[in-house]
Amino acid sequence: MPNNPVLVAMDLEGVFVPEIWIAVAEATGIPELRLTTRDVNDYDQLMRGRLAILRRHGLTLADIQRVIGTLSPLPGAVEFVAGLRARFPFIILSDTYYEFAGPLMAKLGSPTLFCNSLETDPAGNVVDYHLRIRDGKFHSVNAFRALNFTVVAAGDSYNDTTMLGAAHFGILFRPSDKVRQEFPQFPVAEDYATLDRLITEFVAGQNAPR
Amino acid sequence: MPNNPVLVAMDLEGVFVPEIWIAVAEATGIPELRLTTRDVNDYDQLMRGRLAILRRHGLTLADIQRVIGTLSPLPGAVEFVAGLRARFPFIILSDTYYEFAGPLMAKLGSPTLFCNSLETDPAGNVVDYHLRIRDGKFHSVNAFRALNFTVVAAGDSYNDTTMLGAAHFGILFRPSDKVRQEFPQFPVAEDYATLDRLITEFVAGQNAPR
Repeated sequence: MPNNPVLVAMDLEGVFVPEIWIAVAEATGIPELRLTTRDVNDYDQLMRGRLAILRRHGLTLADIQRVIGTLSPLPGAVEFVAGLRARFPFIILSDTYYEFAGPLMAKLGSPTLFCNSLETDPAGNVVDYHLRIRDGKFHSVNAFRALNFTVVAAGDSYNDTTMLGAAHFGILFRPSDKVRQEFPQFPVAEDYATLDRLITEFVAGQNAPR
Repeated sequence: MPNNPVLVAMDLEGVFVPEIWIAVAEATGIPELRLTTRDVNDYDQLMRGRLAILRRHGLTLADIQRVIGTLSPLPGAVEFVAGLRARFPFIILSDTYYEFAGPLMAKLGSPTLFCNSLETDPAGNVVDYHLRIRDGKFHSVNAFRALNFTVVAAGDSYNDTTMLGAAHFGILFRPSDKVRQEFPQFPVAEDYATLDRLITEFVAGQNAPR
């Protein structure tokens, strides 16, 4: 009796593309947009602050999308994603927003993305954000498990660790020292070749006769 | 408050690619392989019969894959799939097998596929099949709903109707007259342009102010 098929679920920002808010902060020259959940613990407070900053600077969704349109996937990401998709059902689980991710996803070859939505007013200002589901990465991995997939997951930061824990095999990709030390149970990959090797070894172990 | 993001789930055979077993029957000249669930009600009996036929004719998995490798997606399917993936998270839900679908999925641009697995012996003979989960299409749609997606589903035959019923919006694509008459609750599309229009209208209705 062989194992269930493997499904690969991975984070987006920091794994395949740059951190979007940091890139927007740099491109717009608005340093306050660099704040992340490492600086402001409460995500709602952080997002409301970001939306207020955009409003104050008169930046619409189209302005932000223009900035994001200038970004590129990380070096090697396009080829690595293509290789994964040729071998496994592959889904990107992200806390970002469809309205932001669009241009970058196109450059990645339009893989399947589960994330969140922004709300705009008729003038194109971002007036609100809507999390599709709380701790969506974790719940998605559990849903794939319930559909009898063997789930391999990879991500780079705190908000990925519940999904790594829920997966059959979780991998940290380029984590901060703090995350690496706090979650020693997850193997670490610093490049796509290592990530690929860890996945290939896991799958080979799954398929080995027992 | 906007609606949840739309996820599109579609069947594979008859929608984007030819019926695989029928194509294999034609390419190998083994007419008994044309039998489908329309002829043999019991899927397990049907599959065991197919595997016995392959064995009798000495056809290995590699032989079948070679035949499937000569097939092409239906005309227009590649462009239609690319267009859907640029707009929505998109997942193909199929009762086929990863080992069969591979070459055709590559031609479709490697969309995410949820399906089943075949078991081979060391000589490459197909010795068993493993359904990942019973009524997998239906359970997948329900899982996407539980993750707070608005689900649009399309398929062509009986084994799609439970997923069409589970979706927020279900569409029959090129159904047989029998299926069409038995399931009048689902709108019908005979081509990709109509399927696209039905989806676009549904999404517009979702986003309209109420």
